[in-house]
Amino acid sequence: MENIKEISGGITAPAGFYAASHAAGIKYQGREDMALIYSEVPCKAAGVFTTNVVKAAPVLWDRKVVEESDYARGVIINSGIANACTGEEGMKICRATAKTLADKAGDSAENILVASTGVIGMQIDLEKIVCGTEALFEKKETGAAAATAAARAIMTTDTEKKEIALELPLGGKNVHIGGMCKGSGMIHPNMCTMLGFLTTDLSIEKALLQEALSEVVKDTFNMVTVDGDTSTNDTLLILANGLAGNEIIAEKNADYELFVRALYYICEFMAKKMAADGEGATKLFEAKVVNAKSKEDARTLSRAIVASNLSKAAIYGCDANFGRFLCAMGYSGAEFDQGNVELFFESKEGRLQVFDHGTPLAFDEELAVKILGAPEVTVYVDMHEGEASATAWGCDLTYDYVKINADYRS
Amino acid sequence: MENIKEISGGITAPAGFYAASHAAGIKYQGREDMALIYSEVPCKAAGVFTTNVVKAAPVLWDRKVVEESDYARGVIINSGIANACTGEEGMKICRATAKTLADKAGDSAENILVASTGVIGMQIDLEKIVCGTEALFEKKETGAAAATAAARAIMTTDTEKKEIALELPLGGKNVHIGGMCKGSGMIHPNMCTMLGFLTTDLSIEKALLQEALSEVVKDTFNMVTVDGDTSTNDTLLILANGLAGNEIIAEKNADYELFVRALYYICEFMAKKMAADGEGATKLFEAKVVNAKSKEDARTLSRAIVASNLSKAAIYGCDANFGRFLCAMGYSGAEFDQGNVELFFESKEGRLQVFDHGTPLAFDEELAVKILGAPEVTVYVDMHEGEASATAWGCDLTYDYVKINADYRS
Repeated sequence: MENIKEISGGITAPAGFYAASHAAGIKYQGREDMALIYSEVPCKAAGVFTTNVVKAAPVLWDRKVVEESDYARGVIINSGIANACTGEEGMKICRATAKTLADKAGDSAENILVASTGVIGMQIDLEKIVCGTEALFEKKETGAAAATAAARAIMTTDTEKKEIALELPLGGKNVHIGGMCKGSGMIHPNMCTMLGFLTTDLSIEKALLQEALSEVVKDTFNMVTVDGDTSTNDTLLILANGLAGNEIIAEKNADYELFVRALYYICEFMAKKMAADGEGATKLFEAKVVNAKSKEDARTLSRAIVASNLSKAAIYGCDANFGRFLCAMGYSGAEFDQGNVELFFESKEGRLQVFDHGTPLAFDEELAVKILGAPEVTVYVDMHEGEASATAWGCDLTYDYVKINADYRS
Repeated sequence: MENIKEISGGITAPAGFYAASHAAGIKYQGREDMALIYSEVPCKAAGVFTTNVVKAAPVLWDRKVVEESDYARGVIINSGIANACTGEEGMKICRATAKTLADKAGDSAENILVASTGVIGMQIDLEKIVCGTEALFEKKETGAAAATAAARAIMTTDTEKKEIALELPLGGKNVHIGGMCKGSGMIHPNMCTMLGFLTTDLSIEKALLQEALSEVVKDTFNMVTVDGDTSTNDTLLILANGLAGNEIIAEKNADYELFVRALYYICEFMAKKMAADGEGATKLFEAKVVNAKSKEDARTLSRAIVASNLSKAAIYGCDANFGRFLCAMGYSGAEFDQGNVELFFESKEGRLQVFDHGTPLAFDEELAVKILGAPEVTVYVDMHEGEASATAWGCDLTYDYVKINADYRS
């Protein structure tokens, strides 16, 4: 991809960023459950947040920081308890956590971001999160090991940590972008699928940073669904500290476009990782809709396919029950004529057409099972009604999804 | 309930209605898979159909009969194959089936209704359904046994047949209403949750019959969700043959109101049966939302609660994870302030408040598990924002739901 290359280091790959993790015993015992992202200099901050009417306290806190503060210095994250549906006490926890880090850093609370993930409707112990925050500040380090430990500390039911970093030559300098995120249940389009954090040493104006993030999210994080439940806590943050030394991006020039492409790469990577690691998932389930009437239709149709429980169960069972995908498209809200539709199954095992302009095709069942048995499966739909395309990502629905969620809290 | 009483006889309880069932081998082997409802005299017919853009052939056929034909004589139903996504061949099957019954009955095809349920995207064998239709006509009978056999023949993954009949004194006569329906997967609001059939000997004008049915559906069948998948085939039909001899209902008088109440009773009964027998379900999961800003908000909020996979899995696991219900309400699309909300769990084992005006309550976990362990569980939410109420019905999400749907087709 042009001159963009993957490197190691995760969120600490950009210059001047530190990470830390700590076992604060907030809910989990015997594992790290807090993480810190910290920049040695002030950062431009941008964010995208859940559209859920019931917003968790950290979402309310962070939205204010992103909108009203001139800069941000760091993010304190905890897993185990989501600090959602917690009333005034929940906001108090946010303020105290931010103030603790601010005091250590010689900054003020309104320049500190916070994020939580875990059980809704449970209060976080104030003393534990304050002590944890102090410990994180002492432990902060640059380097890949600290970044990876942080990416692990923010996990809940995730089975693997999700991090990435890129380097790209931009304005005569080497610019870096790092990211980490966590899924993996209560995940459904509308920003952004739990928690995602991006760091960069790029120099860019705040308004453009926000615009780039908001634009890229639409076709990446917002195209992921695990279970149709849009969380109260969904948050994607980016901190840009400018230490790469490039000439500041102040308009939509070639540098901006390059940055957006790199951001898209990183967000698509993380979105797919999150989908593939959906609770109980055994495979990545992708829906590609092409030649739809409009971009919005293409997004709606592809998301409906990967969001359907019946589609997801069929993918789990390697059942070429393509009627379920057409059914999901039909109730998605997008208007179309099934007489124009072609539908294919794709994976590394091959490609197979099963529906052709309104009519089911006789097809090779054995080949279908083989294609659907791959770890990454695509349902490819040609609408033949326009020129817009979109891709959505989800996972199969398995016994384990039910198991994980039938006793998650206890 | 006033003078309305439950009686036996199902769809044959009203005067002049016959039922039949037959093993036509359309997909299932060794069980009856076709059913007939037949009236000895012409009937007013009304219907409500799926809103899915991808409509099955029988839905297109029936809509035309209900809208354009003066009367209907009967319904031919098959289970096993849905005749959806089947193109022109699918319409041919509908025409041939209707014509076969019409020829036997000395009537014409446009007065015969058809309905199918089962796998999408598979063609029905013409000869089998034609022979089956002929056999049904020969076998038709009045009486409870024939009605019950028909209610069984239309089942797919249902674990029990669903039928009911009522008698009510109306206009000096005894009027009867009978009903049967089937679930139990691909079930989600927007008409009507698979197939439902109502018969009555009431005399009523066609427009009022349609209005009554459309009105009652909103708070009964359309408030059921099993898995969020709105089927291609959802159909609810009512046939009224007038043989009770009451003075024809031609305006919204007291007789009309009484009929609507009886219809509501029958549709709520069937809707709850369908929800409780959702694929893989172990319990009925009800959400009652009271004091919402508007009726539409109340419906939206209550449906969001029972539709959420995470809510459903928590109900399965008897996990009092009330944050999931608040989360679902939050992404439902209805606007509200969580600071006004009270949330309770209810069942025959007791009642327990867990959330009070924005703040989680400490509660007795043992009592919560006991309440949630009952076969019928209610989440009761007081919005304190208005005067509108609604109730939605669903079921828990279990391993068996996944199992049933991972290999349904094969």
